Amino acid sequence: MSIGSLVIVGLGPGNPQQLTPQAKEALAHATDLVGYVPYVKRVEAGPEVVRHISDNREEISRARHALELAMSGRHVAVVSGGDAGVFGMASAVFEAVENGPEVWRTLDIQVIPGVSAVLAAAARLGAPLGGDFCVISLSDNLKPWSVVLDRLRLAAQAGFVIALYNPRSHARPWQLGAAFEHLRQTMQGNEPVAFARAIGRPDEAVRLSTIAQADAEWADMSTLVLIGCPVTRLVPRPMGQEPWLYTARKVEEAI
Amino acid sequence: MSIGSLVIVGLGPGNPQQLTPQAKEALAHATDLVGYVPYVKRVEAGPEVVRHISDNREEISRARHALELAMSGRHVAVVSGGDAGVFGMASAVFEAVENGPEVWRTLDIQVIPGVSAVLAAAARLGAPLGGDFCVISLSDNLKPWSVVLDRLRLAAQAGFVIALYNPRSHARPWQLGAAFEHLRQTMQGNEPVAFARAIGRPDEAVRLSTIAQADAEWADMSTLVLIGCPVTRLVPRPMGQEPWLYTARKVEEAI
Repeated sequence: MSIGSLVIVGLGPGNPQQLTPQAKEALAHATDLVGYVPYVKRVEAGPEVVRHISDNREEISRARHALELAMSGRHVAVVSGGDAGVFGMASAVFEAVENGPEVWRTLDIQVIPGVSAVLAAAARLGAPLGGDFCVISLSDNLKPWSVVLDRLRLAAQAGFVIALYNPRSHARPWQLGAAFEHLRQTMQGNEPVAFARAIGRPDEAVRLSTIAQADAEWADMSTLVLIGCPVTRLVPRPMGQEPWLYTARKVEEAI
Repeated sequence: MSIGSLVIVGLGPGNPQQLTPQAKEALAHATDLVGYVPYVKRVEAGPEVVRHISDNREEISRARHALELAMSGRHVAVVSGGDAGVFGMASAVFEAVENGPEVWRTLDIQVIPGVSAVLAAAARLGAPLGGDFCVISLSDNLKPWSVVLDRLRLAAQAGFVIALYNPRSHARPWQLGAAFEHLRQTMQGNEPVAFARAIGRPDEAVRLSTIAQADAEWADMSTLVLIGCPVTRLVPRPMGQEPWLYTARKVEEAI
């Protein structure tokens, strides 16, 4: 029996023009696609390619299934939206390897990077990541909520621009509001906040506000929330055009 | 006189297979390419395209030049390596707009995201960004060194994986060593550190260590340094193969 392979592919934010040729080629070699339903559906592939779809919460069992397929000789592509290494499937696969049979460590496993949601959202808005920044998942499924709050406070103290993944879902309706409340205790209030929804997809939408005014109701599961730092600014534009959002490169003062 | 346009394009880490079709198309429409020498040289373009090259330190004057060209009717592509929004040219362009003539705000300015160096390095190593992370430029050209140290300490306290851009250059030889020293005061010592050099290019190289053992001499201008958090782990592999580096998704303890 020949050994297979496993590639973990970031599909980018959704616009097919943002899928790299490297990712496209990796997908073209796959005999099996494994991932959360909407990502597997997004991949163009012939009828001979087997699609293994699963629910969003089943990451470790999905990773184990993909590894078993690869061990049985299949060429498996595990797909994630954006970049697979940023709250995507890459970490789950290596966790499954670490806790699985020793022989899985002999597998050929490659990770193909993609344009992450935070980079696509930032580009759509201007240049909000122009300084040092951090990326935090607001989900408390895998870490205590107290850790999320501590990280938000320390990030604000550090003067990082903060990108929030997974800000809000049906199962986690209150966390984003609590995060804003927590940040208001450390921040000045006038730091810009952007709600960037489904960027790169036909239903994309942007809403700009400040940390003092931001309302968690404006976010949903497809929203990336970007919270500015003291040197993040709006550049107003004429004729009702949306202002540009950017973070100055220069930081003058101590934090 | 017809008005031109300005597009700010992230070229990705260097491997042409990691340049998105969107970025390629934007470059194909440009009459003028503006940027730091190696990035402008990397772009394939016909002889009719004008290449404006400049030194690495001249970001604001380069941005102003690009904006003037666009105002004069040219279709200008400002190019950066990786993603233009992550320590690339995007922020400098909007800073020049904010401080320039009002009429520049009427320009058509688009930012095209790219695969950033940190995402390419992470994919090459495994999944070190599997948890919350931050991205810090170690350059103190535009911020006081005390701010860099404060940010490093707060990031370590937060348990972020830390990605360091611009870790070392001829003009800044001692900063990375000082950063490691500073982090050792907060961290345990056994957190993995990866030196990822020129990832995606023919001369790529990887070196793995720990925060206790890491030596700044292993980095140069082309190196991205990734510093793990308490749940970042190596997965050893048989037959002398390089271990995989990943950050567990689950955080059990308070920080």
